[in-house]
This record gives sequence, C-alpha cells and structure tokens, in this order.
Amino acid sequence: MSFGEASAVKRVGDTTWVGEIATGWDIGGNADGGYTLAIAARAAAGAAERPDPVTVTAHYLAPARPGAVTVETQVIRRGGRFTTVAATLASADRPLLALLGTFGELGGYDGPERVDAAPPALPPPEECVLVEPTETFPPPFMGRVELRLDPGEDVFGGVSGPPRVSGWFRFAGGEPVDTLGLLVAVDAFPPTVFRAGLPFGWVPTVELTAHVRARPVSGWLRCAFTTRFITGGFLEEDGEVWDASGRLVAQSRQLALLPRG
Amino acid sequence: MSFGEASAVKRVGDTTWVGEIATGWDIGGNADGGYTLAIAARAAAGAAERPDPVTVTAHYLAPARPGAVTVETQVIRRGGRFTTVAATLASADRPLLALLGTFGELGGYDGPERVDAAPPALPPPEECVLVEPTETFPPPFMGRVELRLDPGEDVFGGVSGPPRVSGWFRFAGGEPVDTLGLLVAVDAFPPTVFRAGLPFGWVPTVELTAHVRARPVSGWLRCAFTTRFITGGFLEEDGEVWDASGRLVAQSRQLALLPRG
Repeated sequence: MSFGEASAVKRVGDTTWVGEIATGWDIGGNADGGYTLAIAARAAAGAAERPDPVTVTAHYLAPARPGAVTVETQVIRRGGRFTTVAATLASADRPLLALLGTFGELGGYDGPERVDAAPPALPPPEECVLVEPTETFPPPFMGRVELRLDPGEDVFGGVSGPPRVSGWFRFAGGEPVDTLGLLVAVDAFPPTVFRAGLPFGWVPTVELTAHVRARPVSGWLRCAFTTRFITGGFLEEDGEVWDASGRLVAQSRQLALLPRG
Repeated sequence: MSFGEASAVKRVGDTTWVGEIATGWDIGGNADGGYTLAIAARAAAGAAERPDPVTVTAHYLAPARPGAVTVETQVIRRGGRFTTVAATLASADRPLLALLGTFGELGGYDGPERVDAAPPALPPPEECVLVEPTETFPPPFMGRVELRLDPGEDVFGGVSGPPRVSGWFRFAGGEPVDTLGLLVAVDAFPPTVFRAGLPFGWVPTVELTAHVRARPVSGWLRCAFTTRFITGGFLEEDGEVWDASGRLVAQSRQLALLPRG
C-alpha cells in the first residue's frame, strides 16, 4: 500500500476525520511515529485548507496499532499567510498523538538566503547498505520505505561510533515524497543511539517537531540524524533532509526516552 | 517586577487561568515570546499538576501587548510519568499563543549519559558586553533580564560574522531561574541573523520548541544561539542553555520569518 493510500483521511464532520493505520508500517507492532504524524497532519492540513506543514509538533501519548483512527481538528487561527491547527489522533477514543501545526503554502520566495551547512556526503545509493525488512528487526516498516545507510554508519551491521546515522531515503516503489511524506522521512531511520554503545531497545519518542522548508524535487532524499545530548534519561535526535537538488527541505528534532535495554 | 510576579497565573475555573502581561517585558511594544510562553506554560503546568516543562511548543498567533490575558488549558493525557496539555493564551478572546506541552518532574536519574558538546567558551560575565535597555532598541525587556554578550559577537556593537550569538543570562536582580524561567532564557538574546549582514528588523517567531533537560543550579547561565539555514523567507534559531555546573539545562529551536528590513 502506497504512502498516499496508507495515510489517507476522509472528513466525516466539521472537525472530524477518519483514517486507518495500515499494517506493515510498524516497528515491533507499533506504527512508525512519522507515519502516524503524517496521518494527523494530513487531516490538520485539510482543516487548515493549506497544503504544507510549515512547522508541526507531535506529542506521542500511546503506541499506535493497525486499525481505524479518528482525527479531531481545531482551527486556532486562520491568518493571511498561515493557519494554525490543533489535532488529536485517537483510536476508539484513546488519544494516541496530539498535534499542533502551522500550515501554509511553500515556494515563490526570491529574497536573500544563506546556508552554513552542506548535505551529508554519502556514497551513491547503490553503494550504500539497503535495510531489508524482516518480521522482527529490522522491522516491517523497512518494506514501506527504502533506506540506504552510509556503510560507515551501518547500525544494523554493528558499526559503532558517535551517535549519527545518515543515508538515502525514498518510499518503496519510488512514490514521490511531498511535504507530508517528509514527515515520514524525519522519523524513518534507526535511532542514532544504537551506534553509541547503548543497548538496543525501544526508543519511545515523547515529542517530534518538523520544519518543512521547501517542497522536495523528485528523486532520492539525503538524510542525516545526530544526537549530542544523552542526559537525564532523555536524548534529542536532530534530523536534516536534503532533496536531489541539494536543497534543505526539512529539519527535525525529537525528544526521546533512553532505551531501557 | 520579578519574573515570578510578571508570569503569575491564577486559576479561575476548571480549565481557565488568568494572568497579566506586564509592562517592560516588551521588544518594540510586543511582549517577549519567551516571557509569554512562560505565562502559558505556568498555567499548563498547573493544569498538569507537574512542575517541569519537559518539552513545550508555542505557535505565535499575534503580538502580545501589556494587559490581562486568559489561558484556557486542556489536559490531553495524564500518564504515570508525564502529562500532556494543550493551552491557548488569549487577550479579550483574541488568541495570541497556542501551546502544546508535556510536563513531568525532572531529576533523580542515574543511568548512562553521553554528551558530544561543550558549553560556549565565554569570557567571564564582567568582561562581556552588558546589554542596557533603552526606550527603543535595545528594548525595555533588557531591563528585566541581564544579558552579557561575548564581545566577539556583540550584535548591538555592529560586530558582524556568522549568525551566532552567545553570552551569559540571568534575571535582573539575580532572581533564581527555574525550569519555567528557562523558557525566557531561550528567547531573550538578540536574533542571530542581525549578525549575518541582513537588515535589522522585527523577526517574528512562528514557532518555538524548548526541551528542558534539567533543573538549573543557581548562578549565571551560559547560552549560545546559531542559525544555519536562512532559506525561503524562513530561518531557524537553535539555542543551548548551560547552567553554572556545566550541565545542559535546555535546548531550543525556533522557526522565524526573515526580517523584511
């Protein structure tokens, strides 16, 4: 099932949308956080009547399992350029994800720019390590996306080092990635902390914020994720997604809990 | 007026709190974004019945002027360790700020830690540049906080360079900074982009997310803010706040609009 189909929502009331968490988008039985965010954001963008999630924040309340979900949306402010929406994604009245987002229409800007960064230097996709899904680990979700990891940062191959993971991303089958699809890209890679000598385990996301800075051109996305602070039982993971034209299209940061091993 | 007094809120109903945006906490007539966030977060922490804003996101909807405000809170999920709350701060029914936050109780952790970063290297406070408030610019808000900028990054002195600003922070009068006070620290410094050769001007924050990682010990806070991507009319500003014990206590990222000059 394509990302577009798996994240589809349908309006069934002024503020209510329904969708379905599809099978196969999970990690150990729990749906990928970027994927569930994309479902909620699609409903919120619909309520906003603006297509691009300029900045969205999700707080994860409970693991999401396959099945029907509802998204309750509330437009907080409709402005000349942006619309801010709050939304809650729930399964049978159990809230799974709370979202706050500001939506707009990206593009058409021609003012001054300055970038003090470069996309990650990666070998070509065919020389990177394809992550193949299994029933367990790597998870089924890896059959929905196509990740090709930098061989020097191959988490699953046991290459340890600083908590950084980078590689190529696209949807399985090459489905184009739109600005909602970028929300999957920012949470699709294996956790950086698996490289830092910490025990493998479930790394629950407390909160994830993504800024979508531009609509990606078609082609592979280059992604890099780093963690600098593993303290107090928490860690942050910062992500960057660059498109095939060499432009930053998304930045992300999530706060997660240290795996308990 | 102290930060504690200026950000006080009072519960007047199950979900409703009232407070007041004090005079003197403004930048060109608009209240500082970190300060208004702190008012909303204080009400949300009250609703959560948990003191520490582990991760809070604010979307800024309209400029905030001095005067009475209400904060409407909604507890989305109360868990064993965290409580997630949505809140809207409004003035006379006009929403100014939307908040989504997860609150908890920080401290008491003794598991593995790893930090791949260091606090900013700064000359001692007395050798840094004290930002003195004026009626206009630097703004009155600089009388409520005490900023001492790294002389090599003195924005107001016209020292240009890469978009980075670092320095010392405390409240005027040395009032201790608690975890709500950190929300002021992450939005108190002059915008990094003033150093990048871009025109001075109002830099409206669209969204700000702060992760509070620990309760600060007493004393000066060391802060550093950087911007790497000025693109498409947007910019991000990443902040770090370290306490006097050399521990990271907060991380922040905001998405702002490029000044129009």
